[in-house]
Amino acid sequence: MLKLYGYWRSSAAYRVRIACALKQLDYENVSVHLVKDGGQQHLPSYGMLNPNHLVPTLQDGDLLLNQSMAIIEYLDEAYPEPALLPAEPTQRAKVRAMAQNLAVDCHPLNNLRVLKYLSSELNLDDEAKNRWYHHWVKTAFKGFELQLEGTSGLFCVGDQVTMADVCLVPQVYNAERFGVPMQDYPLINGIVRRCRQLTAFAEAAPENQPDAVIS
Amino acid sequence: MLKLYGYWRSSAAYRVRIACALKQLDYENVSVHLVKDGGQQHLPSYGMLNPNHLVPTLQDGDLLLNQSMAIIEYLDEAYPEPALLPAEPTQRAKVRAMAQNLAVDCHPLNNLRVLKYLSSELNLDDEAKNRWYHHWVKTAFKGFELQLEGTSGLFCVGDQVTMADVCLVPQVYNAERFGVPMQDYPLINGIVRRCRQLTAFAEAAPENQPDAVIS
Repeated sequence: MLKLYGYWRSSAAYRVRIACALKQLDYENVSVHLVKDGGQQHLPSYGMLNPNHLVPTLQDGDLLLNQSMAIIEYLDEAYPEPALLPAEPTQRAKVRAMAQNLAVDCHPLNNLRVLKYLSSELNLDDEAKNRWYHHWVKTAFKGFELQLEGTSGLFCVGDQVTMADVCLVPQVYNAERFGVPMQDYPLINGIVRRCRQLTAFAEAAPENQPDAVIS
Repeated sequence: MLKLYGYWRSSAAYRVRIACALKQLDYENVSVHLVKDGGQQHLPSYGMLNPNHLVPTLQDGDLLLNQSMAIIEYLDEAYPEPALLPAEPTQRAKVRAMAQNLAVDCHPLNNLRVLKYLSSELNLDDEAKNRWYHHWVKTAFKGFELQLEGTSGLFCVGDQVTMADVCLVPQVYNAERFGVPMQDYPLINGIVRRCRQLTAFAEAAPENQPDAVIS
């Protein structure tokens, strides 16, 4: 059985959960608490599984795999139905680029370890950290919305759910959590609304995870 | 003919140049000067090609594609020889994860627009910016070196050049440029040395580009 080391609020883990849910793959969810004990991802025992000390990590038999997009590509090859990448080469390429627009150029700037560095090393207050956060989300969403004009149908690329949607929904969840105004992105909002109506996206949502702490 | 919008010192463009050189693909190199005129990537005319205002962008007939890793995957599908991803599924997955360890978790934190933000918005001096830069490279290389113990042969994953090596060499070029000490990474150093002996890597190197300015 697949084993996924993740955390309810990690958006990279959230992406993998969506992919698993879309493919109806059962997996054991192992919670790595990113805050408790100074962050359980820093434990040496977790470092044996993932020397980068980040989540998620997927275990499939002997394979230990990190990086959410590599995991999703792996799942898409190993468990091809439903496909999260279109068969047509230029469409596949567009899906990957759209996914990476968020997972490469936006999320890594705003994840927990970076926000920690901003506080502890650069002494930024919450307002300055929030400005940083909003800046990179807005920059990414502005470009993403423009690209959607050329690629989107019901979903990010055409009318099927793809890896791009799998990355978009967690990024919007994060943006909402940090209070980024969303009114300028009608195409993004429509796609996210349609995704959230699908059972797989609901199942994978942070608040529906066993380790969720809802205040 | 392929057209690549890039910049000699952009490490994301450098990755694509290496992939093209390995596959012996001819392409027209269009220089987008990232510094001159406040950054030519910000021009509206470039925004028409790439709404994210980043390099690289690849044009192949009607296809306009951004994101270096999406471009490399596209080239690997369209021009399969030599393959930059192994055929075996778990090895493919490892290659993607290793590439992303650098291209997702390291490079986006240290690229030009982020360094600009650190100066102009956060008023960091050069020393603090350098600390930031070194911190993320060291964090990434430490994990990468450990993972190489399980994956590497002559190159990052086994004995063939893959997308992981295509990402590693530009990242090391950047690290050297910013004076990151490299003595703790014997496996990385050996792989980079072997890559640099290959004609394709030399052809793609920043200093050998038509828009290079060597002081």
